[in-house]
Amino acid sequence: MANSTMKALNYKGPFQVKVEDVDKPQLEHPDDIIVRVTTAAICGSDLHMYEGRTAAEPGITFGHENMGIVEELGAGVTLLQKGDRVVMPFNVADGRCRNCEEGRTAFCTGVNPGFAGGAYGYVAMGPYRGGQAQYIRVPYADFNALKLPAGKEHEADFILLADIFPTGWHGVERSGFQPGETIAVFGAGPVGLMAAYSAVLRGASRVFVVDRVPERLQAAEKIGCIPVDFTKGDAVDQIVEKNGGDMVDRSVDAVGYQAVDKGGSSEQPNVVLENMIRVTRACGGLGIPGLYVPSDPGAPDDASAKGMISLSFGKLFEKGLSLATGQCNVKKYNRYLRDLIVSGKAKPSFVVSHEIGLDDAEAAYDKFDRRVDGYTKVIIHPNGGF
Amino acid sequence: MANSTMKALNYKGPFQVKVEDVDKPQLEHPDDIIVRVTTAAICGSDLHMYEGRTAAEPGITFGHENMGIVEELGAGVTLLQKGDRVVMPFNVADGRCRNCEEGRTAFCTGVNPGFAGGAYGYVAMGPYRGGQAQYIRVPYADFNALKLPAGKEHEADFILLADIFPTGWHGVERSGFQPGETIAVFGAGPVGLMAAYSAVLRGASRVFVVDRVPERLQAAEKIGCIPVDFTKGDAVDQIVEKNGGDMVDRSVDAVGYQAVDKGGSSEQPNVVLENMIRVTRACGGLGIPGLYVPSDPGAPDDASAKGMISLSFGKLFEKGLSLATGQCNVKKYNRYLRDLIVSGKAKPSFVVSHEIGLDDAEAAYDKFDRRVDGYTKVIIHPNGGF
Amino acid sequence: MANSTMKALNYKGPFQVKVEDVDKPQLEHPDDIIVRVTTAAICGSDLHMYEGRTAAEPGITFGHENMGIVEELGAGVTLLQKGDRVVMPFNVADGRCRNCEEGRTAFCTGVNPGFAGGAYGYVAMGPYRGGQAQYIRVPYADFNALKLPAGKEHEADFILLADIFPTGWHGVERSGFQPGETIAVFGAGPVGLMAAYSAVLRGASRVFVVDRVPERLQAAEKIGCIPVDFTKGDAVDQIVEKNGGDMVDRSVDAVGYQAVDKGGSSEQPNVVLENMIRVTRACGGLGIPGLYVPSDPGAPDDASAKGMISLSFGKLFEKGLSLATGQCNVKKYNRYLRDLIVSGKAKPSFVVSHEIGLDDAEAAYDKFDRRVDGYTKVIIHPNGGF
Amino acid sequence: MANSTMKALNYKGPFQVKVEDVDKPQLEHPDDIIVRVTTAAICGSDLHMYEGRTAAEPGITFGHENMGIVEELGAGVTLLQKGDRVVMPFNVADGRCRNCEEGRTAFCTGVNPGFAGGAYGYVAMGPYRGGQAQYIRVPYADFNALKLPAGKEHEADFILLADIFPTGWHGVERSGFQPGETIAVFGAGPVGLMAAYSAVLRGASRVFVVDRVPERLQAAEKIGCIPVDFTKGDAVDQIVEKNGGDMVDRSVDAVGYQAVDKGGSSEQPNVVLENMIRVTRACGGLGIPGLYVPSDPGAPDDASAKGMISLSFGKLFEKGLSLATGQCNVKKYNRYLRDLIVSGKAKPSFVVSHEIGLDDAEAAYDKFDRRVDGYTKVIIHPNGGF
Repeated sequence: MANSTMKALNYKGPFQVKVEDVDKPQLEHPDDIIVRVTTAAICGSDLHMYEGRTAAEPGITFGHENMGIVEELGAGVTLLQKGDRVVMPFNVADGRCRNCEEGRTAFCTGVNPGFAGGAYGYVAMGPYRGGQAQYIRVPYADFNALKLPAGKEHEADFILLADIFPTGWHGVERSGFQPGETIAVFGAGPVGLMAAYSAVLRGASRVFVVDRVPERLQAAEKIGCIPVDFTKGDAVDQIVEKNGGDMVDRSVDAVGYQAVDKGGSSEQPNVVLENMIRVTRACGGLGIPGLYVPSDPGAPDDASAKGMISLSFGKLFEKGLSLATGQCNVKKYNRYLRDLIVSGKAKPSFVVSHEIGLDDAEAAYDKFDRRVDGYTKVIIHPNGGF
Repeated sequence: MANSTMKALNYKGPFQVKVEDVDKPQLEHPDDIIVRVTTAAICGSDLHMYEGRTAAEPGITFGHENMGIVEELGAGVTLLQKGDRVVMPFNVADGRCRNCEEGRTAFCTGVNPGFAGGAYGYVAMGPYRGGQAQYIRVPYADFNALKLPAGKEHEADFILLADIFPTGWHGVERSGFQPGETIAVFGAGPVGLMAAYSAVLRGASRVFVVDRVPERLQAAEKIGCIPVDFTKGDAVDQIVEKNGGDMVDRSVDAVGYQAVDKGGSSEQPNVVLENMIRVTRACGGLGIPGLYVPSDPGAPDDASAKGMISLSFGKLFEKGLSLATGQCNVKKYNRYLRDLIVSGKAKPSFVVSHEIGLDDAEAAYDKFDRRVDGYTKVIIHPNGGF
Repeated sequence: MANSTMKALNYKGPFQVKVEDVDKPQLEHPDDIIVRVTTAAICGSDLHMYEGRTAAEPGITFGHENMGIVEELGAGVTLLQKGDRVVMPFNVADGRCRNCEEGRTAFCTGVNPGFAGGAYGYVAMGPYRGGQAQYIRVPYADFNALKLPAGKEHEADFILLADIFPTGWHGVERSGFQPGETIAVFGAGPVGLMAAYSAVLRGASRVFVVDRVPERLQAAEKIGCIPVDFTKGDAVDQIVEKNGGDMVDRSVDAVGYQAVDKGGSSEQPNVVLENMIRVTRACGGLGIPGLYVPSDPGAPDDASAKGMISLSFGKLFEKGLSLATGQCNVKKYNRYLRDLIVSGKAKPSFVVSHEIGLDDAEAAYDKFDRRVDGYTKVIIHPNGGF
Repeated sequence: MANSTMKALNYKGPFQVKVEDVDKPQLEHPDDIIVRVTTAAICGSDLHMYEGRTAAEPGITFGHENMGIVEELGAGVTLLQKGDRVVMPFNVADGRCRNCEEGRTAFCTGVNPGFAGGAYGYVAMGPYRGGQAQYIRVPYADFNALKLPAGKEHEADFILLADIFPTGWHGVERSGFQPGETIAVFGAGPVGLMAAYSAVLRGASRVFVVDRVPERLQAAEKIGCIPVDFTKGDAVDQIVEKNGGDMVDRSVDAVGYQAVDKGGSSEQPNVVLENMIRVTRACGGLGIPGLYVPSDPGAPDDASAKGMISLSFGKLFEKGLSLATGQCNVKKYNRYLRDLIVSGKAKPSFVVSHEIGLDDAEAAYDKFDRRVDGYTKVIIHPNGGF
């Protein structure tokens, strides 16, 4: 590495990001590698920081969805080689704590002291700079970097292995889904579409997708799902009617705590969960990859601000439902989803709306945040070349 | 059957039950049998009706925990014979609907029109008279009656197969428990003790049992559990301290919606669930056999009255917890628990406090309801003989 | 039923079947129904009897893959109604023994005294006449008959729910398959194709199908599988090469004990199992729905005649493989596969080669047995009308 | 480390081992540690090498069951500290390959080129010296070393976490065992007793243990099992009779390829597997931790020499059995078994027959190999002090 600086997209304050020259990352531990980033994606959760609704301090480099080429290796690395093409899970995990051992890499206790879970470029998720930059340091690299076929093929598909494709798949998994069952996915943003797509790939008999944005509902329909516009009538009633009078076996929350009411204008944090309790049949399951937070200063009421949500728990019990939550353990799935992409069985890049260089990232954040010009899923090539 | 009447314990109104002469049950369907009841137990949930907090009408015969001897068989019965000793799950199930097929007998859709689930002698659970009587009609008998070894041995153990032993076991199962793990059981009433005992039998490394009644805590300790008195300090803090500073892997709610606060004087429906969310480690599981109801006129507040409960859902998500609820599918476990009793590995009857004849049942309800004289688990022999 | 006789296809001796007039079946138990057969399929296993290689006595009516319309109901039937369109699993099961309770309906202990498992129209599988006839008696009908949408739609798909679609699916399930994995299916007869199709529907990344018949390999390719002709080179070597140098995660034996060697001329009962042990990666799984029998008078050697098979068990152990066998518990899957057909996600009838009336059944047996004129999967409409 | 040599027990040729001075191990990779061995156990599988039945070359240091105190740490180690008391699984695993990620640490592909699986001190299992020595190098130490409570308590229990306690547990797990079931364990050597003990701890209703050595059968009885002496009559018949006429749900092979016939004099490699197929009920499962090898020059016949074993596969299929094999993934269980020991629920050291210093190891090998003086499980303290 002749040059010791690189370009990176840094947070500067609410609604401000800037491409700046920063020091290139260095190896800090024998198991580290340095990756030259070929692609990094912007995630909806980056907007929480961008909008100033978190404790993120100016200077942080964003980007937890990253892939690229191995550039440099620490002395402890045994499985990777220089030049390998790799994609990293958004979770940073050490591969040696109890949770990692048991496949719960989203809850690693070794990478972010005092907390179970770490990530790149995210406030409170540990000291790992993001990948919306030319280079990124990847700790515990043999464990964290998934090898990809050499070349440039499937770049827009593979980048989705860092977060949203596995996260959608995880939502389906956490619902207890079995092939042949029916499932309702709430939310048709990138994660919701990936959940719906996962259910299709895994042999759902019917996949209902609930949203209010026509383009999203059309995307769901294109991949074989049944769209449900919640502004056109009660979502649960619509699903049951379209499902021949039956409730569904499983449901997935791909919305999270910022759910909005039927009118679509004000936040009602329990609305999706309540609909899931209603629409899921007795003995069924609820998968909840959508984010809920223990503390939310911007919440519509005091209880929500403390992460408290009021649920029809009596109904939940009466139906004998089960419910499972949490960040996605990306490593549990990414290898298999990669193979589905390689063999041509899956092509998740249908959700990608824009491919840009790093210089366009500032504008992209602005447009994505305002949801204009069709910005839904943006991928960045910080070193150009695509 | 020479005699066409029998004695039965009937509900007469709030705080009134009476042993009366009623018609003996008849076969009504080819798959029915009539069982001469040797033992029926009184369940804590019978008290909900007894106290007049339900819509139960006078005239109902109580008793959903029943065992006895097969007296008469319908023409469709193929596996049972006259004289067989049998115990019936509290759930009435048809063995032919989808839920029964899949082992979800607590959610049978064929025995209680418009609802998933039926039971003997219970309001709104279908037209099945209870077994606190000399005889009981058992529908779909081949499916519902579990054969026992002939004789009188283990009577006080076998009767617990009807409900509380499987229900406690189910709570542990629903928590996702694996042998070697640690688990906290909230509530040391009969179901809580059965949950704790189940965890011991299944190889828990540590079982914490939370209650405030000294006798209950002593009973827990006797079977190898670690007692936690929630009036002596925060229950979660005590558990973590006794567990070497760690949270537990699993927790079970054996209390339900009538949970009381730390002072023990007023109902606080979410207190147990909140403690479970706090005390269960990231990636762990919550098993909830304790009853929550969609509607409770006697609830301490409006939300609870509608079965709404406020939970630290943000924390639940952050820890990636899963949670599973519902009535016990008794048939899934009773065969195996019977075998544990027969082989001498399990002896759940340690929870039985009183064995009485039917004539003493009126007084027993009164004392059990007032929790005096050590009435915790009463079993009745309606035909005497024990 | 005005008429008390009906037409049925009876076995008369080796290589002889005949359509004869026989008594119409009667209700024999309160839980019975009589079904007017709209479609019955001929199964490869019928040929074992047809060829005289079993102990089947003349007079038996063939047919274990049956569907039709409910014509008459016993007094104990509660869920079905006259006129319902239903398909029956090939297994006869009572729904009330331990194995049925636990979903192991292929191993019912209540329908065929002294044996775990019963079937229609099959030697040694109990007293149940087959459905290659105008009417069939269905015991324990609520449990055994799966309701279908009224009408005539999907008839050729639904009939496959009786046996081969669930059996193929079961093979995949028994291999321990998870979505995203690779799998090799040995044998591309109807069951093998259904196994391969199941793996496709359930999200396999790659499905290899091994056979030597060009038409079968083409059919496999059409549904998205990778064909492997075992006469063109070692099957395992071909798979590993086409799989990028890796072994597969799972394998399925859809051939059974009559496997033939590479030349294709002589039987070598362990050849498929040995290939599976070789081609499956360490920690992988083998699913074995293909039939192996405890006694086979026509076997190529003494050991095989006693059902003994010699395996590379040391290699199996070294790789830590698991292996699961057995007849398909059709009820575990048929509901879900039906729903996949109804929703248009699955169309298994691509394997059906011929649709005929009962009068053509004699000729069909002859041709199917000789594998001429493309006879691979024949379905019969005994009451005409399609 | 002032002193650069240490004492180690080395293989010198058939029936010869010797305590010699060798170089102390050094850190070779940043993730290595050096452990001062407090206890190492002799395993029955060490005798295969000792007897000269393997390709082991003179000079190898034996010992794959090891525990001790962390003495030195590589720069990449993050979770361990100098002075930590640790026990190592016999499998060496890198924690970063696909199999390790998925919990299959016995099949690590990163520690023994060209093979899935590595171990300490064992022929063909990689370049890892054994722990029957004063010091041992532990690679990928954060992943491989399980922390224990400080001190000297439970030393004889904890050492069994390296291999035989988890291996016995694994056998039960691989059989598909569920609590309440019945199980038969073939072989009551140390691993068989650990399997039986595991089944007891996990809530088996009945555990049958088959052997012919009175002391072993007595040990089984002491922990609550039912002993079966296979020289006193057909083992299967005895089990079925003692089990009330029923076959068992599960069976475990803790014998392996060196099984002997009923007379006990000659090897018959399939005898245990055949008994398992006979004694296990339809739908049951066989767990096979007992070793089978792909090549055995000392086998009684040509087929066995190539690792071929003849099985009643037709019967296996007819009963719908499943079967799972393979070395134990120790890490999957050792944490939980440790906790059972710490909490006092498990005390596996009842199998330990002798505790010795390193100087007595030569004699111990001789006696253990000849099975004299009650040598069944020997543990060595290479640095004295116990």
